Amino acid sequence: MSEHTIPYKIYLNEDEMPTAWYNLRADMKNKPAPLLNPGTHQPMKAEELSGVFCQELVRQELDDTTAFFEIPAEIREFYKMYRPSPLVRAYRLEEKLGTPAKIYYKFEGNNTSGSHKLNSAIAQAYYAKQQGLKGVTTETGAGQWGTALSMACSYFDLDCKVYMVKVSYEQKPFRREVMRTYGASVTPSPSMETAVGRKILAEHPGTTGSLGCAISEAVEVATSTPGYRYVLGSVLNQVLLHQSVIGLETKTALDKYGIKPDIIIGCAGGGSNLGGLIAPFMGQKLRGEADYRIIAVEPASCPSFTRGKYAYDFCDTGMVCPLAKMYTLGSGFIPAPNHAGGLRYHGMSSTLSQLYDDGLMEAVSVPQTAVFEAAEYFARVEGILPAPESSHAIRVAMDEALKCKETGEEKTIVFGLTGTGYFDMVAYEKFHDGKMSDYIPTDEELQASFDKLPKV
Amino acid sequence: MSEHTIPYKIYLNEDEMPTAWYNLRADMKNKPAPLLNPGTHQPMKAEELSGVFCQELVRQELDDTTAFFEIPAEIREFYKMYRPSPLVRAYRLEEKLGTPAKIYYKFEGNNTSGSHKLNSAIAQAYYAKQQGLKGVTTETGAGQWGTALSMACSYFDLDCKVYMVKVSYEQKPFRREVMRTYGASVTPSPSMETAVGRKILAEHPGTTGSLGCAISEAVEVATSTPGYRYVLGSVLNQVLLHQSVIGLETKTALDKYGIKPDIIIGCAGGGSNLGGLIAPFMGQKLRGEADYRIIAVEPASCPSFTRGKYAYDFCDTGMVCPLAKMYTLGSGFIPAPNHAGGLRYHGMSSTLSQLYDDGLMEAVSVPQTAVFEAAEYFARVEGILPAPESSHAIRVAMDEALKCKETGEEKTIVFGLTGTGYFDMVAYEKFHDGKMSDYIPTDEELQASFDKLPKV
Repeated sequence: MSEHTIPYKIYLNEDEMPTAWYNLRADMKNKPAPLLNPGTHQPMKAEELSGVFCQELVRQELDDTTAFFEIPAEIREFYKMYRPSPLVRAYRLEEKLGTPAKIYYKFEGNNTSGSHKLNSAIAQAYYAKQQGLKGVTTETGAGQWGTALSMACSYFDLDCKVYMVKVSYEQKPFRREVMRTYGASVTPSPSMETAVGRKILAEHPGTTGSLGCAISEAVEVATSTPGYRYVLGSVLNQVLLHQSVIGLETKTALDKYGIKPDIIIGCAGGGSNLGGLIAPFMGQKLRGEADYRIIAVEPASCPSFTRGKYAYDFCDTGMVCPLAKMYTLGSGFIPAPNHAGGLRYHGMSSTLSQLYDDGLMEAVSVPQTAVFEAAEYFARVEGILPAPESSHAIRVAMDEALKCKETGEEKTIVFGLTGTGYFDMVAYEKFHDGKMSDYIPTDEELQASFDKLPKV
Repeated sequence: MSEHTIPYKIYLNEDEMPTAWYNLRADMKNKPAPLLNPGTHQPMKAEELSGVFCQELVRQELDDTTAFFEIPAEIREFYKMYRPSPLVRAYRLEEKLGTPAKIYYKFEGNNTSGSHKLNSAIAQAYYAKQQGLKGVTTETGAGQWGTALSMACSYFDLDCKVYMVKVSYEQKPFRREVMRTYGASVTPSPSMETAVGRKILAEHPGTTGSLGCAISEAVEVATSTPGYRYVLGSVLNQVLLHQSVIGLETKTALDKYGIKPDIIIGCAGGGSNLGGLIAPFMGQKLRGEADYRIIAVEPASCPSFTRGKYAYDFCDTGMVCPLAKMYTLGSGFIPAPNHAGGLRYHGMSSTLSQLYDDGLMEAVSVPQTAVFEAAEYFARVEGILPAPESSHAIRVAMDEALKCKETGEEKTIVFGLTGTGYFDMVAYEKFHDGKMSDYIPTDEELQASFDKLPKV
């Protein structure tokens, strides 16, 4: 390999790390639609939300005009324990693909939670502690968010109750043990601890649970236990705000070497990673200062952007949470089994939904086998075993790089590598054994789900 | 937390990374004793070893006078993909312990193999490729070495045959899948593929295997298949040479900030991590340029330094490998079940054994439960889930820091954090459930094993 002027890994110095989160909504002409009260269909007020969320987080959730929120010193100290994350130049991948494209990835997996989720978990735990709360509740599916929140709560000495979808609880005992190592209580959902859990178990005695049910249990416990609030790892505006640290670091690192990306790519489930990665770039685009192609990648089995409806919908299957306007497959939509647990959500961040609807970003969906082919290829040439979620972005980054190979264009591609796949080896095993499904929902299935959207 | 001048994580720049490995033996007055032919009891010659190992690795194994070996450019490129590893200042741990000690750890876990093993794996794969070999064979117990070698072989497009102790193969399917992701073939040992495997299976039909048996199978295949050689992840001089990259980076990082350690601590199984971490510091000590307390930490269940004999012994239970003079518990010694697979070897690097015998370093052994208590404490305050092996060093680093708390001494402690524990959650689960054993071998057990040492 020839000499290079840009290092394999660009690490910012501590004093170059962001001191404020960037609130993308401040620069949006068309603001994301407000959350609605599920009973009255009126915009949710701060008072209504503050029974569920911490006060400061409610403020962040509702504020669509303040561009920057200072990152409290305690959170910046915590960030220094695992951030800045490296912006990696994928020299080997470029070489192997034989592409003139220049590929960079922002790697968020080098922390024990194994993903970017920690960026928001620590913020949410901090504000809970500041408010004098005793603890927080949440749900987790694949387990990355639960792990991140456990770490954050352990740091601030907060109680952490995690409702883990029963099938994951049983199939991913290692994730559960990591959470226990951080002192969290982990309950398989549905459980007998909550009214909603008991109701579901009475109606469906053998159920293995769902994320929607786990949300309902976590919300019930948070709102009925003094000193507790509920926290969520994606979808919400506050989460995108905290995750802007990913994009801000990325932009500083690129600017340091005078690099301007042409294409920015991220996987999209609820939108936390993508919204964070693109934040400052989209900000420039909104302000007319620069232009970028921005691509959201979603699984073909759960294609909320590419095949969903832009409409008000419930955020949970239990229909107790507020209504959000978003690209959605319907809150009752159940994606075919796939191994990117973090991308199985039926809806999408309201902020990203508005940007997509305004034509400011693109979206593509990719089938599962093609994603794992990219994952294995990447693991071999770049030496990092990627999470299935992250591998959606790898797939499209490779596809774009291969297009450059055909056209000869030296485009600069940046993608988000959100996490590692150490707890996803069952999925890799299925891939190696040729037992992976590529099921894609039919139009009829989607229409049946759309027919049940709330009338707003 | 107050302002600090030393960052949480010291990362060297690419141009500060070592360009040569340091061969500790060059500065030793008392050289490590030579390997002996198991039949003749005469020192092994290069010709004899080159049927088993690559030629360049034989040269490195036998050379105890050359101080520096240049790191080939291809290996330096690979190192840049996951190195330099950070030297972390454990501000939070210091604060929580309330100690005036300053604690640093060199973290080798931020790569997909999850440990420092990759440093030598890539070197050994490189020399195999240079020699025009088709592939290599090895054994793996816990799986870290096998994973590292799979990654290295994938990089250089070499065939990789891993014999994995059957009990680990069955209990750690995820490790196996990571190796398969990197294209390695993984065979549970004992197998029907080798004469030695068939013999053992005929004699012990239900055996779950042992590292000694897996070594014998891997050596048999390497020596009987044209174009193959055998590679090993610890104990050997060549491995310590490659692992010196850990210590060299550590020393450069400390020097950059004018920090002089008082105590250097590492866990010790076969010695690869400890030998690498201490190399340049021990070199200074040998040359009379500086003094350090250097502490090897081993499990109380497998105490080769603290309770072993310094004697010639077989490196494998099959007794086909050369004899090495080392601190040993006897090649037939089987440690009680414990969860630090990388520290279950009966012997110890000849180089470290000689240094220990010469009084140049100390050793302590620690019981398993105390190790996991330290592991969990560390995970919570420093945010990294440590491997059980690495946690032995954490335990003693914490103990030394607590002594400083009593005496008020502001000592600087550096320890090696060799890897992450993502694949060790079964062990953490036993710890959480209070089912962990602290069995320590009796004097009678050890004596019975010593009685079987070869007469040399």
